[in-house]
Amino acid sequence: MAEPTRAFASDNWAGAHPEVLAAVAAANAGHAPAYGDDPWTARAVERFRELLGDVEVFFTFNGTGANVTALRACMQPWGACICPETAHIATDECGASERFTGSPLRTVPTPDGKLTPALVAPLLKGFGVLHHSQPQVISITQATEIGTVYTAEETGALAEQAHEHGMRLHVDGARIANAAAALDLPLRTITGDAGVDVLSFGGAKNGLMLGEAVVFFDRTLARDFAYIRKQSAQLASKMRFVAAQFDALLTDELWLRSARHANAMAARLADGLRGLGVTLTQEPQANEIFAILPPETVEPLSAACPFYLWDASRSEVRLVTSFDTTDEDVDGFLVELRRLLRR
Amino acid sequence: MAEPTRAFASDNWAGAHPEVLAAVAAANAGHAPAYGDDPWTARAVERFRELLGDVEVFFTFNGTGANVTALRACMQPWGACICPETAHIATDECGASERFTGSPLRTVPTPDGKLTPALVAPLLKGFGVLHHSQPQVISITQATEIGTVYTAEETGALAEQAHEHGMRLHVDGARIANAAAALDLPLRTITGDAGVDVLSFGGAKNGLMLGEAVVFFDRTLARDFAYIRKQSAQLASKMRFVAAQFDALLTDELWLRSARHANAMAARLADGLRGLGVTLTQEPQANEIFAILPPETVEPLSAACPFYLWDASRSEVRLVTSFDTTDEDVDGFLVELRRLLRR
Amino acid sequence: MAEPTRAFASDNWAGAHPEVLAAVAAANAGHAPAYGDDPWTARAVERFRELLGDVEVFFTFNGTGANVTALRACMQPWGACICPETAHIATDECGASERFTGSPLRTVPTPDGKLTPALVAPLLKGFGVLHHSQPQVISITQATEIGTVYTAEETGALAEQAHEHGMRLHVDGARIANAAAALDLPLRTITGDAGVDVLSFGGAKNGLMLGEAVVFFDRTLARDFAYIRKQSAQLASKMRFVAAQFDALLTDELWLRSARHANAMAARLADGLRGLGVTLTQEPQANEIFAILPPETVEPLSAACPFYLWDASRSEVRLVTSFDTTDEDVDGFLVELRRLLRR
Amino acid sequence: MAEPTRAFASDNWAGAHPEVLAAVAAANAGHAPAYGDDPWTARAVERFRELLGDVEVFFTFNGTGANVTALRACMQPWGACICPETAHIATDECGASERFTGSPLRTVPTPDGKLTPALVAPLLKGFGVLHHSQPQVISITQATEIGTVYTAEETGALAEQAHEHGMRLHVDGARIANAAAALDLPLRTITGDAGVDVLSFGGAKNGLMLGEAVVFFDRTLARDFAYIRKQSAQLASKMRFVAAQFDALLTDELWLRSARHANAMAARLADGLRGLGVTLTQEPQANEIFAILPPETVEPLSAACPFYLWDASRSEVRLVTSFDTTDEDVDGFLVELRRLLRR
Repeated sequence: MAEPTRAFASDNWAGAHPEVLAAVAAANAGHAPAYGDDPWTARAVERFRELLGDVEVFFTFNGTGANVTALRACMQPWGACICPETAHIATDECGASERFTGSPLRTVPTPDGKLTPALVAPLLKGFGVLHHSQPQVISITQATEIGTVYTAEETGALAEQAHEHGMRLHVDGARIANAAAALDLPLRTITGDAGVDVLSFGGAKNGLMLGEAVVFFDRTLARDFAYIRKQSAQLASKMRFVAAQFDALLTDELWLRSARHANAMAARLADGLRGLGVTLTQEPQANEIFAILPPETVEPLSAACPFYLWDASRSEVRLVTSFDTTDEDVDGFLVELRRLLRR
Repeated sequence: MAEPTRAFASDNWAGAHPEVLAAVAAANAGHAPAYGDDPWTARAVERFRELLGDVEVFFTFNGTGANVTALRACMQPWGACICPETAHIATDECGASERFTGSPLRTVPTPDGKLTPALVAPLLKGFGVLHHSQPQVISITQATEIGTVYTAEETGALAEQAHEHGMRLHVDGARIANAAAALDLPLRTITGDAGVDVLSFGGAKNGLMLGEAVVFFDRTLARDFAYIRKQSAQLASKMRFVAAQFDALLTDELWLRSARHANAMAARLADGLRGLGVTLTQEPQANEIFAILPPETVEPLSAACPFYLWDASRSEVRLVTSFDTTDEDVDGFLVELRRLLRR
Repeated sequence: MAEPTRAFASDNWAGAHPEVLAAVAAANAGHAPAYGDDPWTARAVERFRELLGDVEVFFTFNGTGANVTALRACMQPWGACICPETAHIATDECGASERFTGSPLRTVPTPDGKLTPALVAPLLKGFGVLHHSQPQVISITQATEIGTVYTAEETGALAEQAHEHGMRLHVDGARIANAAAALDLPLRTITGDAGVDVLSFGGAKNGLMLGEAVVFFDRTLARDFAYIRKQSAQLASKMRFVAAQFDALLTDELWLRSARHANAMAARLADGLRGLGVTLTQEPQANEIFAILPPETVEPLSAACPFYLWDASRSEVRLVTSFDTTDEDVDGFLVELRRLLRR
Repeated sequence: MAEPTRAFASDNWAGAHPEVLAAVAAANAGHAPAYGDDPWTARAVERFRELLGDVEVFFTFNGTGANVTALRACMQPWGACICPETAHIATDECGASERFTGSPLRTVPTPDGKLTPALVAPLLKGFGVLHHSQPQVISITQATEIGTVYTAEETGALAEQAHEHGMRLHVDGARIANAAAALDLPLRTITGDAGVDVLSFGGAKNGLMLGEAVVFFDRTLARDFAYIRKQSAQLASKMRFVAAQFDALLTDELWLRSARHANAMAARLADGLRGLGVTLTQEPQANEIFAILPPETVEPLSAACPFYLWDASRSEVRLVTSFDTTDEDVDGFLVELRRLLRR
């Protein structure tokens, strides 16, 4: 096996946090009922309730699985979901949302990956008219796919708008921990207390091997979710191995410690880039940085430390930090970039 | 946490094999490309090719995910899939197959969970007639849901029948290892060489934490499978943690060692039951036993050692052994049953 | 254009009743609001209410369209629909039901095309268990695809069974008029009053050019049906041309007159066949006859007067009469058969 | 029945052309094979071939039915269809496209309802990348939903762009006749010869009672279409009553005569509006006019002669003419508007 690569490619290039791996090993204790009727699952759900209040929680395998099952729970087939043009559900899930729900996503161009009531308002029409898909969900990503973060007030405003129209607010929280860390607010404040109805709580990008949690703040939405998850092929038989990871993630705030670390590494990287005169195209708030690099530096730099060329037309790259990014990773990257810039 | 329960409830009540867990821990080494572009995945695929020939292999999260994506690859929406009435896809996946494929399952009653060309023949009609769903796949389970096993010849006869009609043969191999162990034949002999087009190779029931592999013997069926898997929400981002498990499973024949052990435990249990005068309703060939127990013994016995009451109307129970079943588990169960029978 | 063929092939080989055609012509009067907001639609709906009580009525293009939208209204994707093995939805709609609902049909073998509570009972299991598609609808065809008819009591017993389990009773009434005529009972008695929740009321097979009506006796099921119909591509823009046909069909009991006539012609044909020593395989109650003909007569006879060979293995044929079948059609057929039998 | 309303609401508020109605009546001649195996269908298909060359033709019930089945024939579930933001499939079919295809529509804002290669180009990315829905179809509407028309060259340029990327060009031709009339070009020149792969040929908006035709210029796309149409509930049993309408429409160029008349009426109306100082928001090329009316005139004017308020925010209305619009209709409308303007 080759030497493991250090990368800013994505937070899913990182492995599992040691505490997570230890929890998985500890869960490998004899027999346990399948499909979630086991003590690890019960405990992980309990931890979510300690953190978020009286929620319903269901584990899925991955983020796409969490998002599409959450949307199935919120929408009827004649519904429509409003989301930013940059939403992962719209761009990076190969049409899973349309396939699972049978309904359209209405995508909205945004300057910063964030919906606002003003951006959503023009799409809030056609209610009760049978020719039109009925707007039923607003879906936002927190932190966004381009590294920005909704304040609690911004999320609350969208929730209010949704509820005024009988709609739901879904949050794709693949990086919800990074958002909470960035805002320095309790997770509950920026989710359930802000009016979020259902949250895809990300695990993999925050140090799990795999696993996401669908968290229903509006518990009525969860009524038939057990069937939805099963029919959507997202129910693990040996559930304890998913649940134990979440148990670890929610123990001693591992989720928050990891996110804070990733965010701090991103800030260190952003500072360094700015110091080298590099232009950042989005204000980095969480663990993703978008920057314009001189085109001739992209290939050699990414060969040394992989990252994605986000928009080749303007040589914009994406750099993502994770729970295991080190000061040395960041500084080494900056040294190499400085070297390339001087050529 | 309560004392772990020993059970004959299902092979998915067992945990992960220690060699599997060790491989997962070893895979937690730094950064690696996501979505399967990593060395663990390459190695696991290579191991499948050593075992099964020039196949295409894709990992999914669970058995339902493997089955529905495999069927999507073999069928068009106006197709139909012929399977036994007892097929897991027909009875235990909450309609996932119909939902993912948009097509019907044509279920066939069988005496022993096994299709035969004679049972299938009456359904091979309506080809080319637009009013009728077109038969496109025969799906069998190996070992079956009721513990029986197809011989290589029986599988081959169904493959031949399928191919004569331009159809495909899919095998739900949630317990394919147990079947291979029971038949004492190379895996390739009872799958690809017998004419199987696509196999759901089971992992979870044979000692993985989670994970199944969709194995295409007919590689043309795999052409668009990467999209199908992604759109079906079955693509792991940190794929290495699934792949490493399969790598372990296929190292030093762990899959076969585990299956042989489970089968041996089932045989020991069957012998013991017969010795107590218990009637077995199916000839136990793999790791599942179906037996008629005196009704009054079912509840106390399953309280001590959980198992499923399969058919309450005749007090038929199902007992499943796994890689970690011990002689003591079996003998303890028999002792308890003998005690209850004497009351 | 060749001489029009007289046939016993199907009641959809007949044309439109002259009263229907006249109504269509009369509806061609200037402009009218589209999509059903027109006076013809209002009047046709009113006629249904006069006949059937306080129902909700929606017109669709064809029988498959009526059945699949009705089922969509009664089921959730994780539901299942129980129907006879011979049901049109299971055999002759190319998987439309599975495609539109995403759910399985559970087919039941029957001796005479009719479900009974005893036949349904074994499938009423798994309620509340997430692994199993939830039984949500019983669907029967009245008159059945093999010419038999449910009594009001038989329908009522199935409705009661359905409702006891929180399920719905759907009737595919492609030939509901023939059933009502055969039973000599008010339509309401054998549908809504018997507990039917939703009826696909057949038009095409009873003298319309095209068109079916989805009639909701349980009006709560109709709540979102306008969206379901539109999204299912079953909403006519110039609705008046469908509605006017139903208006005619429900004027002066044209539906019943036509059905009685078709049934009478079938009875005449059945008597004639019996007189020739022909065995009928089902008791003909409505407008379909199933008979065993000497194999050598089938081809010459169907060349003279087309009909379907239903089961070639036993030379069983299906003969269907319609509103426009004449005494001469029947007698001519019998003369020709007698001639062939004497050879 | 109230006095029939004259309207500019939509071309589907008009009735059927007398020649169409006569053809329907003439088709009501005795028995005929069902599902399209009848002489009327053969003749109507032949007429399409005379007009458009060696095409495959299938009749459906309505425009949504034609569009969604055409798209099903061109796309795989992991595909995507690029269309204007104003496309009927995106705005007025209640999500039928997403439901039937399981795939997204990628909508593009346009100034005039028309795609151009430059507008499409930014969406032509992600080919071969499993995370992204694969662009497989470009769909345009001709004439557009806002009354504009693609030249043959404009259509050709989109076809070329599509084919260069292995994609298909679909045309929603609900008003294709109006476009051909406006361009004064043979229908074949602006469709098949321009590179169109599949056309939804509109019937209802051009004088049929109901019915659309899916016309495949690329006949390979039609291979499985019989199943697609049947499974999509778009196959008429008494097909002759749909086919006979198309036979009439294609006899003596009724389709073109009707479209020319509607377009001429729209031109007369546009001239009159301009004469009254009314601003037209789109250049009227076919049979739809978009105009800004003084807000206080909208309600009284539409009470006298119904039309749609298209964009209330700027008092923009839509006026549609049809085959049966008269000089008197137009002039009367203008008189009434002049009267209201003077108040």
